Amino acid sequence: MNQTIQELFDRKSVRAYSDEIITPEEKEWILKSALQAPTAGNMALYSIIDIQDQSLKDQLAITCDHQPFISQAPMVLLFLADYQKWYDIYTHYDKDIQPLEESDLILALEDCMIAAQNAVVAAWSLGIGSCYIGDILENFEIHQKLFDLPKYAIPATLLVLGKPTLQQQNRPKPQRFDLADMVSVNTYHHKTMDETKQMFIKQTGKNEDELKNYIQAFAKRKFHAQYRKEMNRSVKKMIESWK
Amino acid sequence: MNQTIQELFDRKSVRAYSDEIITPEEKEWILKSALQAPTAGNMALYSIIDIQDQSLKDQLAITCDHQPFISQAPMVLLFLADYQKWYDIYTHYDKDIQPLEESDLILALEDCMIAAQNAVVAAWSLGIGSCYIGDILENFEIHQKLFDLPKYAIPATLLVLGKPTLQQQNRPKPQRFDLADMVSVNTYHHKTMDETKQMFIKQTGKNEDELKNYIQAFAKRKFHAQYRKEMNRSVKKMIESWK
Repeated sequence: MNQTIQELFDRKSVRAYSDEIITPEEKEWILKSALQAPTAGNMALYSIIDIQDQSLKDQLAITCDHQPFISQAPMVLLFLADYQKWYDIYTHYDKDIQPLEESDLILALEDCMIAAQNAVVAAWSLGIGSCYIGDILENFEIHQKLFDLPKYAIPATLLVLGKPTLQQQNRPKPQRFDLADMVSVNTYHHKTMDETKQMFIKQTGKNEDELKNYIQAFAKRKFHAQYRKEMNRSVKKMIESWK
Repeated sequence: MNQTIQELFDRKSVRAYSDEIITPEEKEWILKSALQAPTAGNMALYSIIDIQDQSLKDQLAITCDHQPFISQAPMVLLFLADYQKWYDIYTHYDKDIQPLEESDLILALEDCMIAAQNAVVAAWSLGIGSCYIGDILENFEIHQKLFDLPKYAIPATLLVLGKPTLQQQNRPKPQRFDLADMVSVNTYHHKTMDETKQMFIKQTGKNEDELKNYIQAFAKRKFHAQYRKEMNRSVKKMIESWK
């Protein structure tokens, strides 16, 4: 295993930060690494808001499903799927540009996430932890207003970063599914319920009797949760707003 | 600059491959690195199809906007946004599970792209180049059938990999936009047309007179292109199919 792959294996989400600052040089490496990511047609269909204002962090800690650690992170980056610059320059030089469509949004979201993961990898290589906040997909209208977003710039993910506390350094990384359960050859393998159970048993360490309660509790916490209802509503608005 | 960040800077897309094989060990490191990526709630809302069959590669070279190099790549990975395993186990244990919604698809797409970028980074650290094929978003119905995809597994991206030819090693990496043009502080900065032009002038190396033609040609090639029309159509179907 080389050093880079070792880092990809070691990297885990960090949600509590030491007092050690992130230096301006470290921040610049992280941001520049994001920009070096692959991007469709070299269009860079994203942009980044570096959220330094404490009151903005405090608001995000509320609007992103009440997660106080967001307000305590020394570095908070809002990654936007952003087609606006291209739409602006296209329409300036070409009278025949129509409104964007869903596929433009999906491409921009993909560009954006690729860049965000480069930031995560670069940060970890510098000893800086991070956590993706998927809850930025909630409360679209509030975030649109809060950051003065134009039509074709949409919050894709929030990334909070900081140097890990000792407790976070020692926290075990959650067990992933087995490679054999995640990768198939040439065609999709739709698992039988028995195979599916075995996959979850291996990942969770539960036995079959415990699995039922575990999944029911997980569904309650993740699927039936208020945050998911809000995310469903918000993402519909997000897509409508783009079209 | 540390080694990892150096690699993120050096990495560029590779579309022509030497005869050197990718060993099983290298492939395993790449796939395992993908699985180590951050994932929302440790749900791993994606899966990977390792496309080894030459006739499948040949078909993708056609359905992904006629790019013959896809069929010549020694390693072709189809990354799926995949909620199916969770939907299956949820519905098995919980009678109250409703159909998925758009936000579930977006979360799964994000999980998937984060994992794909880990594969890209791991591959590059092993001297293996890669290229994202966004055109996998086209021809949704064909790909769904070709890979026998269930309702909640959707092609997000195709990644083709191989060791770069000398020509590809020497190919210059396309110039990115400036950091100052991609990152704003605390709020979105919607650029004036003058600022937008300057951003494009810096990235393209064109002067202002040349920029008009450049952008018009770019719009013709990217925005008015047949492939984008097909992608628009296909992604609408993809979203409908999910709901």
